[in-house]
Amino acid sequence: MLRVLAVASVALGPQAAGWVRTMASHQLLVGPPEALRKPLSIPSRLLLGPGPANLAPRVRAAGGLQVIGHMHKEMHQIMDEIKQGIQYVFQTRNPLTLAISGSGHCALEAALFNLLEPGDSFLVGVNGIWGQRAADIGERIGARVHLMIKELGGHHTLQEVEEGLVQHKPVLLFLTQGESSSGVLQPLDGYGRLCHRYKCLLLVDSVASLGAVPIYMDQQGIDVLYSGSQKVLNAPPGTSLLSFSDKAKNKIYTRKTKPVSFYLDIKWLANFWGCDDKPRIYHHTTPITGLYTLRESLALIVEQGLEDSWRQHRETMAYLHGRLQELGLRLFVKDPALRLPTITTVAVPAGYDWRDITNYVMDHFDIEIAGGLGPSAGKVLRIGLMGCNATRENVDRVTGALREALQRCPRHKL
Amino acid sequence: MLRVLAVASVALGPQAAGWVRTMASHQLLVGPPEALRKPLSIPSRLLLGPGPANLAPRVRAAGGLQVIGHMHKEMHQIMDEIKQGIQYVFQTRNPLTLAISGSGHCALEAALFNLLEPGDSFLVGVNGIWGQRAADIGERIGARVHLMIKELGGHHTLQEVEEGLVQHKPVLLFLTQGESSSGVLQPLDGYGRLCHRYKCLLLVDSVASLGAVPIYMDQQGIDVLYSGSQKVLNAPPGTSLLSFSDKAKNKIYTRKTKPVSFYLDIKWLANFWGCDDKPRIYHHTTPITGLYTLRESLALIVEQGLEDSWRQHRETMAYLHGRLQELGLRLFVKDPALRLPTITTVAVPAGYDWRDITNYVMDHFDIEIAGGLGPSAGKVLRIGLMGCNATRENVDRVTGALREALQRCPRHKL
Ligand SMILES: Cc1ncc(COP(=O)(O)O)c(C=O)c1O
Ligand SMILES: Cc1ncc(COP(=O)(O)O)c(C=O)c1O
Repeated sequence: MLRVLAVASVALGPQAAGWVRTMASHQLLVGPPEALRKPLSIPSRLLLGPGPANLAPRVRAAGGLQVIGHMHKEMHQIMDEIKQGIQYVFQTRNPLTLAISGSGHCALEAALFNLLEPGDSFLVGVNGIWGQRAADIGERIGARVHLMIKELGGHHTLQEVEEGLVQHKPVLLFLTQGESSSGVLQPLDGYGRLCHRYKCLLLVDSVASLGAVPIYMDQQGIDVLYSGSQKVLNAPPGTSLLSFSDKAKNKIYTRKTKPVSFYLDIKWLANFWGCDDKPRIYHHTTPITGLYTLRESLALIVEQGLEDSWRQHRETMAYLHGRLQELGLRLFVKDPALRLPTITTVAVPAGYDWRDITNYVMDHFDIEIAGGLGPSAGKVLRIGLMGCNATRENVDRVTGALREALQRCPRHKL
Repeated sequence: MLRVLAVASVALGPQAAGWVRTMASHQLLVGPPEALRKPLSIPSRLLLGPGPANLAPRVRAAGGLQVIGHMHKEMHQIMDEIKQGIQYVFQTRNPLTLAISGSGHCALEAALFNLLEPGDSFLVGVNGIWGQRAADIGERIGARVHLMIKELGGHHTLQEVEEGLVQHKPVLLFLTQGESSSGVLQPLDGYGRLCHRYKCLLLVDSVASLGAVPIYMDQQGIDVLYSGSQKVLNAPPGTSLLSFSDKAKNKIYTRKTKPVSFYLDIKWLANFWGCDDKPRIYHHTTPITGLYTLRESLALIVEQGLEDSWRQHRETMAYLHGRLQELGLRLFVKDPALRLPTITTVAVPAGYDWRDITNYVMDHFDIEIAGGLGPSAGKVLRIGLMGCNATRENVDRVTGALREALQRCPRHKL
């Protein structure tokens, strides 16, 4: 080190004086980690858990492109295309539509940070983990959080929601369209109109369902809708989709307090995403390659057509359910109309440890399937068929693997 | 659409009833956007602005890999390697070291959300835009924010900081090592000890300086340090680096209130990043490919060696400064010891509109250089030489482009 220093100070003269002093009075005490001298090696896996799903080849290619600047006009063009793609998959004309530079949780926080002020009444439908998370964030903000709790595998009926609206007079209701922890598909027809009758806004999580199940943001009166990149869209995690109705926008723009986050402040983001008429101002550095991949994933669903994507997921689900029943497995969600096509929950078969089964399938077939999450932990296996992973061939692969796992894994006497 | 529906309900029977009703009572009103039918095309640019910098080829390759699950053991291994890489570039042994799933601003929020509670006194060094941003976030949290304002191009002396500590008794001081809006390098020797004498923690932003300028987190007594992926590390934006000393950790773990963000709650993240002894619990889906690229960028700096990277940036800066002076341009930061090697600020030459110059260089050479930001807007041009972009060849390219721009751009009589 001393040698380097000497050379540097000769070459650079007095301007390096500050550094030279700093370097002379300190040493590198933490050496270079050996583990980083090895090459990066990523195993090849079929991801049939609750997400992330595998990347579509075209999306993957976009992830390997060189970056340009976040304020370059070509990047603004890509952002505009992403907005249009989100408007299409959400079926909305909301001008306030954009991508968040973070995962699904980050989009949920963006929604709640901007919509709720301390003291606001917030009604949360809980029928799995996602309502719990929304409630947790609502409490951190200082909202008055009211839970509507349903048993795992259940959904929230219009009547139950109306009771909650009457009792708690919330400014916002949270529902999860695709409850990926329980495998339930929450119906959405009529909920928006009901909320609006009680002057409440409707916020819906479609992270695990978007692209696989019909959703019509405007027609169903959903005020705030968010989703993720890493499920049906087959893009890498790290960006999420978010849109606000004019009613929701109005609540945000008439708040009395600033939202607690600058990173997720919708007024800044709206400008940065070209949702107002003003020139775009730098706000934060967007995940450039993440936006490339999101753009490509939206382009793929545009190419396929939304309705064809819905059909593909519905048919693949039906095929999976048939094969699971042939294996003697029981679907966790009893009402067939409430089964989420992306993520199928299967009751852990009697006598087995779910970990043995998921490990077997991973170790012998390089296929990921998952156990439960939060309230469903220990109770279910979860099989995900999302986007390009939703094929009959993959159903055959995973059910073949399951068949073998059921034969080979230890079965404890009951 | 009706045809598809008919086929679907024949094929699937009653279980699709809910959907079929939903689809029958709604229509796709928002058509597929034409812009997304065109292929994605990314221009090739030399990014010599304040960031993002170009990706190193090995980093870029990692961005194009297939994803695995965020909870797979190989991913935990990659996260462990990232932690070790951050400990090396930060020169720290802090166990509470991790990457944030968001940009530099997100890391700043992670630091402030966790360290500050409402009512806490927060002292902010402002000598450009980054102190302003830290102050903005501090105010959103409800801290009592006190600004120490220096003129643009200046830095905070030990004496000034001591006066601020005496006057405001802060729990936290914010300083920016590399003020990328003004081009100032803030010295850091002695500041940590000074803060600790007054029971204050020291938070430092090294987004624009890490890897180019010596920093010794532990030896310099820095309690919280963060940086970004998209500058010297040559990785895509979207992840950031963050570490907490034991003192800082202690403040976090004895808070009375929960931090307002779940996404950035350090207690959750510490577990998720294996910084405690408990089994890792799912918290959010990490940006898998973003972590691949961050891992590779850290591997590259390990391969090169920190001191060699510092030398490279110092020498390239000196070469750039010489060439700029040959062009008759004036460096904005007067004291040579305070010039940031990554981002050089050049006074806008008299008679020119800075936009003409940056546009000329972009349009004729596909090279990005930038104007000012925040308080420096209109006053400076900014030239960035970061990581693999910090070469003499790039200095020759950008100064050649500047020479031509100065000849061709309109010069207004003074
Ligand atoms: C329905 C639902 N909501 C929210 C999330 C959270 O998304 P992320 O893990 O990207 O933060 C998930 C992730 O699995 C999900 O399935
Ligand atoms: C010194 C400094 N701090 C913070 C940031 C913010 O980082 P990001 O744009 O990634 O949010 C930047 C970005 O340019 C920076 O230069």
